[in-house]
Amino acid sequence: MEIPPKITLAIDAMGGDHAPHAIITGTELAVRLDPSITPILVGDEQKIRPLIKADSPLRDVRIHHTTDKVASDDVPSQALRSGKKSSMRLAIDLVNDGTADAVVSAGNSGALLIMALMALRTIEGIDRPAMAAFFPTMNGRCCMLDLGANIECSATNLVQFAVMGDAFFRVTADESTNHAYKPSIGLLNVGEEEQKGSASIRDAAAILADPEINMNYYGFVEGSDFPMGGVDIVVSDGFSGNVALKTAEGTSRLIGTMIRQAFQSTFFSRIGYLLASRSFKKLRDMMNPQNYNGAVLLGLNGIVVKSHGSADPKGFANAIKVASDMHRNNFMEDVKVGIARSLKAIEMSQNNKASAE
Amino acid sequence: MEIPPKITLAIDAMGGDHAPHAIITGTELAVRLDPSITPILVGDEQKIRPLIKADSPLRDVRIHHTTDKVASDDVPSQALRSGKKSSMRLAIDLVNDGTADAVVSAGNSGALLIMALMALRTIEGIDRPAMAAFFPTMNGRCCMLDLGANIECSATNLVQFAVMGDAFFRVTADESTNHAYKPSIGLLNVGEEEQKGSASIRDAAAILADPEINMNYYGFVEGSDFPMGGVDIVVSDGFSGNVALKTAEGTSRLIGTMIRQAFQSTFFSRIGYLLASRSFKKLRDMMNPQNYNGAVLLGLNGIVVKSHGSADPKGFANAIKVASDMHRNNFMEDVKVGIARSLKAIEMSQNNKASAE
Repeated sequence: MEIPPKITLAIDAMGGDHAPHAIITGTELAVRLDPSITPILVGDEQKIRPLIKADSPLRDVRIHHTTDKVASDDVPSQALRSGKKSSMRLAIDLVNDGTADAVVSAGNSGALLIMALMALRTIEGIDRPAMAAFFPTMNGRCCMLDLGANIECSATNLVQFAVMGDAFFRVTADESTNHAYKPSIGLLNVGEEEQKGSASIRDAAAILADPEINMNYYGFVEGSDFPMGGVDIVVSDGFSGNVALKTAEGTSRLIGTMIRQAFQSTFFSRIGYLLASRSFKKLRDMMNPQNYNGAVLLGLNGIVVKSHGSADPKGFANAIKVASDMHRNNFMEDVKVGIARSLKAIEMSQNNKASAE
Repeated sequence: MEIPPKITLAIDAMGGDHAPHAIITGTELAVRLDPSITPILVGDEQKIRPLIKADSPLRDVRIHHTTDKVASDDVPSQALRSGKKSSMRLAIDLVNDGTADAVVSAGNSGALLIMALMALRTIEGIDRPAMAAFFPTMNGRCCMLDLGANIECSATNLVQFAVMGDAFFRVTADESTNHAYKPSIGLLNVGEEEQKGSASIRDAAAILADPEINMNYYGFVEGSDFPMGGVDIVVSDGFSGNVALKTAEGTSRLIGTMIRQAFQSTFFSRIGYLLASRSFKKLRDMMNPQNYNGAVLLGLNGIVVKSHGSADPKGFANAIKVASDMHRNNFMEDVKVGIARSLKAIEMSQNNKASAE
């Protein structure tokens, strides 16, 4: 077996509801699964060191010490000003100065977004970063972006999200996926007809359908379509994308609660549960957010992965895998190529509009 | 038992996927449950009459004959121009000329919206109509609006939606609900903190929190909150509301499909299903959209209820019940009182903004 090249990850050891314990245990799990990962733990050495046992794969880990941290309820702008020595910020800085290949944090999303944006800046040609994550679907999963970094979006923003989503989907696909696979891209809208939605959405649709951009554009999709697996990537402004993500989570939680209540409600249903329990494993796995952990901030000059704040060690290890897949499969280069192609399609569309006016 | 006053409903007999059969059968069911309802069936008499048996409660029904109808895939603007003799339009006209107290249609939503808006116009003080419907939640149900009639909304639009949603929730509440109950109102946003979201949402929040408007304003809610029953009413622009509605539907369908697959996958799970089946009735009822049928167009000078296009007779009867509840419990008067109160709160907020600038 080919040994993958070494990768160095900056880990914010103090971010998230169960830090530093779940972060350390999750990082140990990730390193056991992939020993080519070299983590740097950023945080309070006095709290981190006692958690690392003598037989841990992290026994020789480098700890980048700081006692400052960003709290989960800190206002992002405040965290930006006063958190310059926080574990989150120092972890981002390790990517910025080239010490680490990517950063993983389970801390405050808003603070991570604004700190990473200020420290790393966006890739040339990208106006705004986007937050992306995977949703479970009938066919496996789809990637949705933006999930809340941008409340209002222009057509150009949406096209850039599509380019980033396309690259992200391919670099994190499992190895069984054909390298030439072009993921299908849908634009979230309130109907499938061409005249639906805002002007930005309709303009973005025209650009994405342009052959010059060389993407597998599917068309408009509605919230009812993507859970059944209609497309690989759903592109949306950050407001609607966040509403879709949260509504899917809330609906899953509601139905999950009712399934549990149904199985516990009578003697017969409890026996029924014992008999059917194994068959429900697939559903339980699908509904377990830990298996889809790892939202990413795309479009920055550096790989930034946001683990869910309540991630357990397995969930945090998944977020680490997302970061290492992105680095190994050259996500940054891939996006740059896509953006160069998109610029031509955007320019042509602007010329068409100008000549029509 | 007190006999409720007579109510006359204009029924678009030709709208929906299973028209006129499901419409006639649904109307029969509604009239059996509430004999004080007098329907007028609008549509093709030659197709309707043979469906009414000699022992039907509709045997003496008035049929308002027309052979024209709006197709489910007609473009709304086109339907408006060429559908002046359609069953949908004539049914709306019966409300406009005072013959009927409300109209119920399972036809093309976009056409119904634009025709009803043109024929009935909005209530004085209301700028735009909104589409509202109920969602199942852990506590029962919540009402969400707008669901797609307005892609972009100002703060004033959102406040008007809140007033209409408040009245709609109360007039359709079941009889066990205390008459003085003030439903709680949430504004859909991407976070619960005050500084989140667009300027329109933040301005609407300030107006709804004003004591002058006398509403039970809860605050911002996210897509993950309302399925668990946090609030009675969720106010949103039409784009995000539509995304939330459709995503909840799509997620329910995905999980429902996986539950069926899980129960059918092995011999033991099939036995498990037999034992647990009765306990799953509540979940099946909750996930059955027919039980929540009846989206309404609020804010027009007339009561307009939109049944789901695929409604079965029970679903259509539910839509009829929504229309009769709205008429009996004086929805229109209720909204007018609420709008008058809201005008003062909106004016005060505008003065505050002007003096701050």
